[in-house]
Amino acid sequence: MRITKSFAETRAASLGTVGLVPTMGFLHEGHLSLITAARQASDTVVMSMFVNPLQFDRDDDLVRYPRDLERDVELATAAGADIVFAPELEEMYPQEQFTRVIVNQLSDELEGPNRPGHFEGVATVVAKLLAGIQPDRSFFGRKDAQQLAIVRRMATDLSMPGEIVGVPIVREADGLALSSRNVFLSAEERAAALALSRGLMRAADLAGGGEREGSALSAAVHNEVGDSLEVEYVTLAGQDLVQPLETLDRPAFLALAAWAGETRLIDNIHFDSDEFVADRGTRLTERSVLYGTGEI
Amino acid sequence: MRITKSFAETRAASLGTVGLVPTMGFLHEGHLSLITAARQASDTVVMSMFVNPLQFDRDDDLVRYPRDLERDVELATAAGADIVFAPELEEMYPQEQFTRVIVNQLSDELEGPNRPGHFEGVATVVAKLLAGIQPDRSFFGRKDAQQLAIVRRMATDLSMPGEIVGVPIVREADGLALSSRNVFLSAEERAAALALSRGLMRAADLAGGGEREGSALSAAVHNEVGDSLEVEYVTLAGQDLVQPLETLDRPAFLALAAWAGETRLIDNIHFDSDEFVADRGTRLTERSVLYGTGEI
Repeated sequence: MRITKSFAETRAASLGTVGLVPTMGFLHEGHLSLITAARQASDTVVMSMFVNPLQFDRDDDLVRYPRDLERDVELATAAGADIVFAPELEEMYPQEQFTRVIVNQLSDELEGPNRPGHFEGVATVVAKLLAGIQPDRSFFGRKDAQQLAIVRRMATDLSMPGEIVGVPIVREADGLALSSRNVFLSAEERAAALALSRGLMRAADLAGGGEREGSALSAAVHNEVGDSLEVEYVTLAGQDLVQPLETLDRPAFLALAAWAGETRLIDNIHFDSDEFVADRGTRLTERSVLYGTGEI
Repeated sequence: MRITKSFAETRAASLGTVGLVPTMGFLHEGHLSLITAARQASDTVVMSMFVNPLQFDRDDDLVRYPRDLERDVELATAAGADIVFAPELEEMYPQEQFTRVIVNQLSDELEGPNRPGHFEGVATVVAKLLAGIQPDRSFFGRKDAQQLAIVRRMATDLSMPGEIVGVPIVREADGLALSSRNVFLSAEERAAALALSRGLMRAADLAGGGEREGSALSAAVHNEVGDSLEVEYVTLAGQDLVQPLETLDRPAFLALAAWAGETRLIDNIHFDSDEFVADRGTRLTERSVLYGTGEI
């Protein structure tokens, strides 16, 4: 394991085919599954850890975003990463960042209206990581489904040679999708949040039984969640353009955002290929390494 | 000489250090001087030729932009290029281009207000060329001074590893800066256009004599041009941020845009280093290879 601080150092240390796993640190098994996927496809696995100010729409969210580099390096090493690229702010933004990468249309729906500037910040920092590290493959979780679509389109639109790989969501044994933000949930909020994955699984069951109406799939989630959480949206959207779909007639995902107290959670189910096979994610058999996620 | 049509083919054919010369074709000695500079610094010299629709703010300008690939390949070969990358529209924009690269602030002045969307189109296509070809060095003419500053900032802001190199303007023996658009000038317009370079040389003389006021340097140009052309702007601007300067107190360029009939011309003088040495460009001793530029 090697910790690098600059792009040049990271490129020099990256031999053979390179798999990049971009993260903001504070790892959980979702991130570790990205390393596993990268390990299988790459000679050198680079995990970047950088809390990117550009993608936070709220300052308080940036300030309270959890950080623990020492623990992260241990976890990344055990999972098979070769390099942890943990740049200081001065390496990523040595001067005022005038350049922005914007992916129009794909940023407009779902998370877009609720998080102004967020995807511009994501697209810009991922463009930097891809341009600066030049990986053969980059691995992103399907949990951030819209982010994955945007990054994929950005890389294609900018003629970047590397491949963008989406990796299934990792869930706790009881269904809660792993997220660094889960540490903020009280025991009661965490219990209520389980309704989100239950609703998505119910929708996946319906789709498996032939249901193709987006409104029926969304209703399954709303019914399960009820009044226990404040739901921002439940939307069926295309995997390529994040366009809201009335009907499940192409590769898509059913995505939601909801508030459990002060904590905003997102989750989704992907429907793949012509048969709309549901990717429900994978489940841990043991409790997550993530701190403070309450009893399960 | 090899002609490539795809990014993948171009990367595969590029051995050792790679020098990229991005152009829109219809070459003149200005472009050829970029090849000469690239040749000295690179194992493989790639010249791209692509008339980029994204950077044209006026459709009629795009339609009448001159094209002659066969002649261009001959000239590029003679000048020392190894590869001409001449992609079809389908390689550069295989699907709707949702992604845009924007360089804020540097795009706001000089050419910016007069050519809405132009620099967004330039920054986006150059980002594609740099990301898709991954050159060690890219060579741009100082004639497009603002473009050079924007490309330089874009590459730095996006952590692209390659270097951006600016190359002096090439002028006809009588001072007219080479431009593919010069073919549109009538003999009378061409004669009138000589006032532009005369004015800039006069300003360089003044600066050489110690003049540091931007207004005095601009006035020298205006006095020379008089009523013979319609001047859009004459501005002293910083080389790094293209910020208008009242005083020549850092590396800068004195830039102008003017209309000769229906043809828009730009020209400039760069002032380099702490001593503000004027880069007046180089002059051809023989008439330019460019067609139809009238008598000189």
